[in-house]
Order: sequence, then structure tokens, then C-alpha cells
Amino acid sequence: MTAQPKRNSTTEWQAQDRHHIHPFSDNAQLHEIGSRVITKAEGTHLWDSEGNRLLDAFAGLWCVNVGYGRKSIADVAYKQLQELPYYNTFFKTTHPPVAELSKLLVDMTPKQFNNVFYGQSGSDANDTIVRMVRSYWNLKKQPKKKTIISRTNGYHGSTMVAASLGGMNYMHELADLPLPGFVHIRQPYWYGEGGSSTPEEFGKLCAKALEDKILELGAENVAAFIGEPIQGAGGVIIPPMTYWPAIQEICKKYDLLLIADEVICGFGRTGHWFGSEYFGIESDFMTMAKGITSGYMPLSAIMVSDRVADVLNSGIDFSHGYTYSGHPVSCAVAIENIRILREEKLVERVHDETGPYLTKRLWELLDHPLVGEVRNVGLMGGIELVKDKNNRKTFQPVGDTGTICRDHCFRLGLVMRATRDTMLISPSLTWTKGDIDDFMKLTQEALDLTAKDVGL
Amino acid sequence: MTAQPKRNSTTEWQAQDRHHIHPFSDNAQLHEIGSRVITKAEGTHLWDSEGNRLLDAFAGLWCVNVGYGRKSIADVAYKQLQELPYYNTFFKTTHPPVAELSKLLVDMTPKQFNNVFYGQSGSDANDTIVRMVRSYWNLKKQPKKKTIISRTNGYHGSTMVAASLGGMNYMHELADLPLPGFVHIRQPYWYGEGGSSTPEEFGKLCAKALEDKILELGAENVAAFIGEPIQGAGGVIIPPMTYWPAIQEICKKYDLLLIADEVICGFGRTGHWFGSEYFGIESDFMTMAKGITSGYMPLSAIMVSDRVADVLNSGIDFSHGYTYSGHPVSCAVAIENIRILREEKLVERVHDETGPYLTKRLWELLDHPLVGEVRNVGLMGGIELVKDKNNRKTFQPVGDTGTICRDHCFRLGLVMRATRDTMLISPSLTWTKGDIDDFMKLTQEALDLTAKDVGL
Repeated sequence: MTAQPKRNSTTEWQAQDRHHIHPFSDNAQLHEIGSRVITKAEGTHLWDSEGNRLLDAFAGLWCVNVGYGRKSIADVAYKQLQELPYYNTFFKTTHPPVAELSKLLVDMTPKQFNNVFYGQSGSDANDTIVRMVRSYWNLKKQPKKKTIISRTNGYHGSTMVAASLGGMNYMHELADLPLPGFVHIRQPYWYGEGGSSTPEEFGKLCAKALEDKILELGAENVAAFIGEPIQGAGGVIIPPMTYWPAIQEICKKYDLLLIADEVICGFGRTGHWFGSEYFGIESDFMTMAKGITSGYMPLSAIMVSDRVADVLNSGIDFSHGYTYSGHPVSCAVAIENIRILREEKLVERVHDETGPYLTKRLWELLDHPLVGEVRNVGLMGGIELVKDKNNRKTFQPVGDTGTICRDHCFRLGLVMRATRDTMLISPSLTWTKGDIDDFMKLTQEALDLTAKDVGL
Repeated sequence: MTAQPKRNSTTEWQAQDRHHIHPFSDNAQLHEIGSRVITKAEGTHLWDSEGNRLLDAFAGLWCVNVGYGRKSIADVAYKQLQELPYYNTFFKTTHPPVAELSKLLVDMTPKQFNNVFYGQSGSDANDTIVRMVRSYWNLKKQPKKKTIISRTNGYHGSTMVAASLGGMNYMHELADLPLPGFVHIRQPYWYGEGGSSTPEEFGKLCAKALEDKILELGAENVAAFIGEPIQGAGGVIIPPMTYWPAIQEICKKYDLLLIADEVICGFGRTGHWFGSEYFGIESDFMTMAKGITSGYMPLSAIMVSDRVADVLNSGIDFSHGYTYSGHPVSCAVAIENIRILREEKLVERVHDETGPYLTKRLWELLDHPLVGEVRNVGLMGGIELVKDKNNRKTFQPVGDTGTICRDHCFRLGLVMRATRDTMLISPSLTWTKGDIDDFMKLTQEALDLTAKDVGL
């Protein structure tokens, strides 16, 4: 094993990579310019094939919660790969890792969850839930209850159905989405859309949009509501605290199933084990992925409440599943990942120490001419770049300034993603105050360079 | 690491597993009786928690092509997990394993394929293709071309869209599938449905069903046809050799995209690298999973033909993808798996030696009173159990006899799956003639016991 990035091979890798269709990319352009080749990672840093070191403020893609280079996870995977690298869970068989993880997840999630189903990604988890929701209402003899409501700018994955649940227009366009039966209401994006209302008022107003939509469609036709406790890819949109209690009440009133998409919020990102805890959401389903394995292996899990499981397990075959549902290596890795999160008290650290410290440091940015708002819960945060902070006036076209800032970050050795002109922060939960200080220094520099570029 | 199955923990694992919703299962019943716990595997054998050894004639779930216990695969994964366990391929970044695998796949697949996209499962690969097909026709300014045609008893995965592509009624039932825009034609199942026609006549007849359906729908409304070269889960249905050339011609005539689902057939199962080679299919897409990693890690890949890629890569963003698209560990494992298949000449062995030997040995079963037909291509085969072999008369209800036989197999130490009353064979490609002899001995015993049970 070489610890040195292979500096001479960049061109070769880029040439090979021209055969690779990248997700969410203009591949013609990317193949023209050539991809940056990430060769190595350790802790919270990445190295590229040219030997550049980058501080990863995005934890891969919201997922490497325990940081890179965890030998104990590699050890567990290595052992499992030799003992039982694969077996299916279809034909009345199970294996130790999936059995143990199931019990572990049941013990660590809210009390209504005693059943878990597995997939490989947040996308297939949310796709699976739609099958479960439809099956549930059909078995309950309410077959008209079909429509699922979600939010503009919500993100629930990329299968045809998961993208339909999601409210990303750019994902809908070319493939005629959303599919029938998926509708969207406004998002609780106070800074962007709240106008002169207080956050509290705006939270209630956005929840009211759910009730209005239910009444428009007829409650007898509405099956469920799905939402991320905090919208991730949409731009770290943290709803006002009035939002979720009102949503919960409306779901109860009109007998909707409530689905909490915990793919990003789950496993400690908010300083709580699940985003649902932070907001006091009591859901019928939780989808989980990313942080469940810190990205070391693909795995998703769906927690199914007793209310639903009792109906789905009522003597019928649940005719759904994936070859890799409950993959033994993925499950073994998840168990070790959760052990690390617990033993190193990383969730507590985010809650008590690094989350509040990030808040404090982010607030300093409010003095910057570019920064209209900062927000975070735990280690999940956003920085709004605006043209006129006194009037919340955005740049036109929206998105260019975020891209400029992201590119400056890259050149300075920092990975930060932009959605629109919002810079997104989602580092490993292992970040120390020192890492936050490093991050702030680079961010400040990138903001200054960006301000210069856009003439602020 | 213990080499011994932990015999005392069966009850404990079964208790934990009661929280686990198994795919394609009656979970209430399964939780009642308790799952069989598979703890260990080596070569082509499994061990359960009670110390029983089983010959796996199903390669996990059509996937463990190189057999269990491959230390070199574990070594490669171990190294990659320490070097770069995860990084995304979204933001103009790549990494060595995904770049290298992309080139490798392009080099080993038919010449029209120079682009590859990644997912985690055959399901998400087929789901992705639907997005690609719709995007392709929209970009080609033929937005009416939407409907995708597939076959009854075809299997293409388990997301809502993948299950809609599939023609499994039991998967459609509870979730109101198929979705709009997915229609099914008859399958080329000669033994079950061919009546008095010759296989050659029947193959043409079944292909003609595609043309009839296109004319019924209007060619201007039909986007694509998808099929497994040999249907797997449907019961190892090997189409007559006249079938695929006729399908190909019809797709060309009416300007349909042709999708070959190589999830099961790919990576050597038929004694060719891809089922498409065996039948001479020239497709626009190939979906691959299972054998690409031999199940050691979740991975799927979609080969996209130049015809399609040129349109999709024409200066637009392809707004689709998964967190784990091109997962570095999965890609590293795939590279090593392909190296093994090549170096040990396993595909050649299946083609030249074990495939023909399996054919020869299976034919001996035709003397058995229960056996109506045997069929195989390479190491993918089926045994049809019937009530009256002279008149191709099936048992009623269909399926019970297959289940009885499967349960006898299990008790005798053999894993063989049943679809309807067809016993399915899909072992590791490492099987020797000796393994086939062992398999035949156990199968013969199981058939004798089954015959007794059903009074034949």
C-alpha cells in the first residue's frame, strides 16, 4: 500500500474517467476539462493526485460522519468479507450482522419503531416507503389514499419515484417527473421566502400549506407527507420551531402517514441521533442512509412503525426487496460505525461543544458584506451570500456567486458545496474546535475573494 | 476471527432477527418460525449457526460468481477502505477505482459502449435507464415516445419503476403497479406455453408479440424494449434462438431503444461474458450488477451506447445520481473480481467444460418421473417438475411441488431455489465437474423424496 498519492498518473486517470458518466454533471464539459482525482483521505482531509490537501467541510457527501481512515471499520469489513461476504435474506435465511444491526437500530430509535427493512441508498429507501405506504392503505381498505405530499426543494433521492417525492425542478425536467400522485407544497425557507413575517409566523404559515393542499385534494385521497427534518440539498433549510409540531398535528387530523427522511440528519449531524428528536417529530417511517455507515459501505435502512408493520406483516408476502438488502458487510460496518459514534461520544460532542462553537464562529461572518444569514444545527449549516444584505436581495442569476465562492474554496484547499448562493457545511462529526477555526479562516478568505469578484 | 460457527447463538440471532423485515417474505410467519442463520461460507459451501454445511447451487442470489472466501477481494477492499473509503463523483471529482473500472468495462463490453454510469443495485440501474430513455427521446424532440415494453415474468428489480418494468404480478399487486407507460408482452417460455409449435416457430411468434404491441400503441409512442437475455427469476426461461434476432429487427424497424438486462447473465454465467453475446444481441444499454462484484460489495453499472450518450452528453446537466454512484470500494472490488474471472479463465471453463458437463448430467434427469424438461446455458439452468411429463401437465396449485423439493434440498444440504415448480440452478462459476456430481446426487435424492411426497 502506498501512502503517497501517485502524482504522475493524473492524466491517465482523467483519460479513463472520460468513459465515466458522472452524476449531476455536464459530462461533455467535464470530460473536456478533466476531473480532479481524489486519491486518499485521512481524518477530515482529502488529497488529490497532484498532492494537494483539502479540508473536507462536506464529509464526502453529508456522510462520512466518523471521518476517513477508520482502521477499525476496515478491520470489521475485512473480517466479514472473509467469513461471509454475501448471503441473501430472501429465503427464510438471515445472518449475524443483519440480525444484530436490526436489534441495535430498534433500540436506538424512537419507541414506535420495532421493524427495519434494508436497501443500499437513501433513494431506494424512499422508493420502498412509497410501496409500503400504498400497500398499507390498500390493506386498510382505503385504496383511494394514494397521493404523497412533499416540499419544493425537498430532496429524497434519485430513482424515478424518489425524484418525484423530491421537489427539485431540475431533476424533474428531462424525465417527465413528478409521476402522478406526487405533489409539492412550499418549503419553510424563512430567509428566502419569509418576507416580513417572524420565523414563528412563517413556520405556521408553511405548515398551513399542507392543510390547504389536503383540503384541495380531499383527505380521503392523501396517503402521506414526507420531509427531511432539515432540508439538506435544498440548502440546509432549517424550519422555524413552529413548523414540525403543526405538520405533525395536521397529519394526525387528516390521518396521513408521516415520513421523516433522516438520510442526512440521522446519526448525529444535528447533535441529536436523529433530526426528529431535535424537532420532536413522531413519525411512522424514518429513512436512514449516509451516516449509518459513514459512507464506508452502501447501506440504507427504513424504520417502520408498529402501526404500519402490524398491517404489512398480517399474513401476506411483502413482495419487494433488493439482492443486497441487509448486505452482511454493510451491516457489519454499520455496527462498528455506530459503536464509534457512541464510544467517542461524537453526537454529544456536536451537541455540547462543536455545534455551539460553529454557531458562534458563523455569527462572526454576519459582519461580512456578502453574508445575509448564517444558520446551523449541530454540524449542519449554511451561509447565505446576497447582493444586498439589508434587503435580502439576491444576486442575479442566482447560483453564480455560490459557484465562484465554491471554486475559491477549492483553490484555497477547502471543500464546501454551494446550493444556489448558499454555501453548505456538513463536516465529519470528528471536527474539533481547531478544525472549525481552520475552516473559518479559509472561508473568510474565500468570501473576501468572492466579494472582490462580484464587486462588493 | 473464528472459523467455527457459533452454535449456541441461534436463538439469540433469531430473536434479534424478529425486528428484520425480510424481502419477499411473509414476515409474520418467518418471525414465528425463526430464520435459518447463515454464519460462514467458503468456496461453494455455506454453514449455518447449527453447524450444517450446505452446497450453494444458487451462488447467494445469482451473484457469487467467483465463489465465497476470496482473500484477494477482501485484501483489495481492506486497502481501499483505508486509503479512500468514500468520495463522491458529483462535483467534478473522480477517484482511481472508478476511473480504472470505467475503462475496463468499456474495453470488455461490445464496441458501441464507451460510457458507463454507476449505482448500487440492478434495481437502481434499470430505474436509471428509464430516466435516460425519457431524456433521450425528449432531447431528440420526440417527446411522445414514452412507453417501455417488457415481458410477463421478466424481472428488472424492485423500485417502483423497476418493478413496473418487470412482469411479476405478485410484485404489482399491493402497490398499484405497473405505473403508467409500462406494458408487457408474452414471454418466450416454450416448455410452458409453446404448445405444439417448434421452439423456432415459438420464438418468432413471441417476437411478433412485440411488433403487434408496437402497432397497437403506435410506434411514435413507444420508447424502448427491455429484456433479460435469459429470464432469471422468471424461471430460467431460455428463449429459442429465433427470438432475439427477431426482437432486434423489430426494435430497429420501429426505432425503439433496446435494453439488455445483464444483471444475472453478465460476467460469465452463460459461458460468455454477457448473455447478449450468446444470442448476438446488439443493445443500446446493458445493465449489470450481481456478478460484477460477485456480491462482495453492492454495485451496478449501466453501459450506455454512443447513440444515447452523444445525446445525453450534449451540453446539458444529467441531473441524476446516487451518493454511492461509483463507490471506491465497490469499484476496487469489481476490478479484482474481473481479474479473477479472467486469470482463472472461469468464463472459458463454463463455456468449454462445466456448462456442457452440466447439460449432460441434467439430461440424465429426463428419466425421472417428475422431470418434464431440463435446460441450461452455461451454469444457468432449470428443471421443470410436472405431474404428467408426456402431456406437459403441471401440478395444481402450481408452486407447491417446487417448494416441497426445495425443502428436501435444504434438508439434504443443498440450496436450490424454486420458481413455480421449476428448480433453478445458478452456482458459482468455480464449480468443478466434482461439484456438479455432488449436486446431481443430492438433486436426484431430493427429486425421489419429492416424487414420493406427491405420489408419483
